[in-house]
Amino acid sequence: MAQATPNHKLTVSGWAAHDNSGLITPYTFKRRVNGPDDVSIKILYCGICHTDIHHVKDDWGITRYPVVPGHEITGLITEIGSNVEGFKIGDRVGVGCLAASCLDCEFCNDSMENYCDKIQLTYNGIFWDGSITYGGYSEMLVFDHRYVVHIPESLPMDATAPLLCAGITVYSPMIDSKLHESTGKRIGIMGLGGLGHVAIKFGKAFGHHVTVISTSPSKEKEAKECLGADDFIISTDPKQMLSKMRTLDFILDTVAAPHSLGPTLELLKVNGTLALLGAPDKPLELPAFPMIFGKRTVKGSMTGGMKETQEMLNFCGKHNITCDIEMVTSHKINEALERLANNDVKYRFVIDIAGKNSSL
Amino acid sequence: MAQATPNHKLTVSGWAAHDNSGLITPYTFKRRVNGPDDVSIKILYCGICHTDIHHVKDDWGITRYPVVPGHEITGLITEIGSNVEGFKIGDRVGVGCLAASCLDCEFCNDSMENYCDKIQLTYNGIFWDGSITYGGYSEMLVFDHRYVVHIPESLPMDATAPLLCAGITVYSPMIDSKLHESTGKRIGIMGLGGLGHVAIKFGKAFGHHVTVISTSPSKEKEAKECLGADDFIISTDPKQMLSKMRTLDFILDTVAAPHSLGPTLELLKVNGTLALLGAPDKPLELPAFPMIFGKRTVKGSMTGGMKETQEMLNFCGKHNITCDIEMVTSHKINEALERLANNDVKYRFVIDIAGKNSSL
Repeated sequence: MAQATPNHKLTVSGWAAHDNSGLITPYTFKRRVNGPDDVSIKILYCGICHTDIHHVKDDWGITRYPVVPGHEITGLITEIGSNVEGFKIGDRVGVGCLAASCLDCEFCNDSMENYCDKIQLTYNGIFWDGSITYGGYSEMLVFDHRYVVHIPESLPMDATAPLLCAGITVYSPMIDSKLHESTGKRIGIMGLGGLGHVAIKFGKAFGHHVTVISTSPSKEKEAKECLGADDFIISTDPKQMLSKMRTLDFILDTVAAPHSLGPTLELLKVNGTLALLGAPDKPLELPAFPMIFGKRTVKGSMTGGMKETQEMLNFCGKHNITCDIEMVTSHKINEALERLANNDVKYRFVIDIAGKNSSL
Repeated sequence: MAQATPNHKLTVSGWAAHDNSGLITPYTFKRRVNGPDDVSIKILYCGICHTDIHHVKDDWGITRYPVVPGHEITGLITEIGSNVEGFKIGDRVGVGCLAASCLDCEFCNDSMENYCDKIQLTYNGIFWDGSITYGGYSEMLVFDHRYVVHIPESLPMDATAPLLCAGITVYSPMIDSKLHESTGKRIGIMGLGGLGHVAIKFGKAFGHHVTVISTSPSKEKEAKECLGADDFIISTDPKQMLSKMRTLDFILDTVAAPHSLGPTLELLKVNGTLALLGAPDKPLELPAFPMIFGKRTVKGSMTGGMKETQEMLNFCGKHNITCDIEMVTSHKINEALERLANNDVKYRFVIDIAGKNSSL
């Protein structure tokens, strides 16, 4: 398990949860000094991901307390190691979910590091040196440069932060299903939150007809008028669901709560694909009939590789895609986590880590 | 609903269930006279499919009694309609699950009639003329020739009958996953019954390493020695399951009872596919973690199209693939259904419809 390692000499201020109450409080901890493959990053912004809630509350039974969450990080490089190429001091960079991988397996060689079976995550992981990884709810980060990406100049650092997780999480399965290779497909986005709202933007930028599938009728106007959705289905209305059977080529299911995939699968055409992104703590219900009668596919996807993450950011730079965010100071992290748990945010909280209202 | 139609003038003997006791008794009913697109078939053999149990007992709540089951039919052509080409009297033919489709949609045009949303099944369907379809537990059949296939001369009529459903049901998803295009994949067959045993034969004929995944340790010897399986995993042994994590490219899940897909999914490599063939009456459990961490796919599949069914039979003729069967007379149908429900058959019952022991 986690060890104190001799080179962990940097004292860093951040915020951590200490038990499954999930309460976040200021926390001072140690990071390693910048190694030959590392870059040091002054953190400017960190998004609050739904995964952070699962971790601070230990919903999955895997949390190592104290946990410093945060894997949607943007900042500026302040130091580089002797082996580091492609980065220089002052560069605008981003860090997402991945902190390390074996760098030697078929997935690492193909820049699908996210599927390496030795991946270490940005927080709540055990790094190669035996230390627990601490995330972006902190003033600075020392990070292996192979898991750091460049932020295009045209993108703002605050609204870009959530792209490092929410953005790549929806972009990767869309690329995997070749939605970038042709236009005019009919795609569905199930769940209009941090992931869903940016998925609409990608869907439109790829040239598709985008339908939002949601339990909340109140979201229809905004989904269409502000986010560019073409259609809106209320998933709890059986009549609407029935009238849209077999109409969609592809659905991104971003819902984090346990649910049945049955009604959603019926919306897919024959041979259609539902990409599964959420990770409820209980199994989903998968009725066999809509699967077999429609030759339908359910495919899992978890974040993306480093090459793809950089491509995603470049695509966002070109198409001016960012997240819709609500900025919070570090004093408001607990309130933000609570509101996020109630889906009360449009559409992603971002912590202003280095702002003048920061308590650092 | 079902209507009496003027041209249903043929009196036919068969066997039917009349209520959800599922008891099969002799039953005399009417079929249409041979129309211009029809062929008439003297039935020789009919396989007993697990689906027949669901129908006679009304497990899915869709049974129209009296139901004459049977969709694994081989026989000889006795009459052909004026529009029929490609068949002549005396031809050895087979009939599977499909009795009709719209013949006009994208799926029918691509010979994926099984995914036409207007398909009518060989039994318990409503045919275009309003009549209930009656299946192969009967002495003869009048059938649209577009849903009839030729049986290669090298194949015996009895052990070929189950290929019309069990065979095509496992062959189609294997082709869909391109298992015929390269050799040396590692594939798993979950459930060693009517579907599973013939799937092993296809897997070996395609040149793959085949692992049987089963709850029954007693089946290992036969799976390897008689059916040609290369490996055997006992799915209820967590140690075995753990040691085989991330080892398989493809799994055919033939299990008809409700189960969790979680442990099986862990056996798949990253990007692996589980083809779902069974149709339990309750939803399957689909835990999200093995899906997303392994970028795994679950894909439904239901029987196959007519072109593919003929290709499957031709492939079987070339590779000498048939089902391992246990022949029963019509007097033993109820006993056979009961034994099948208890998985007590190696590996498919076939009714000797026209045999000298028949009660017809």
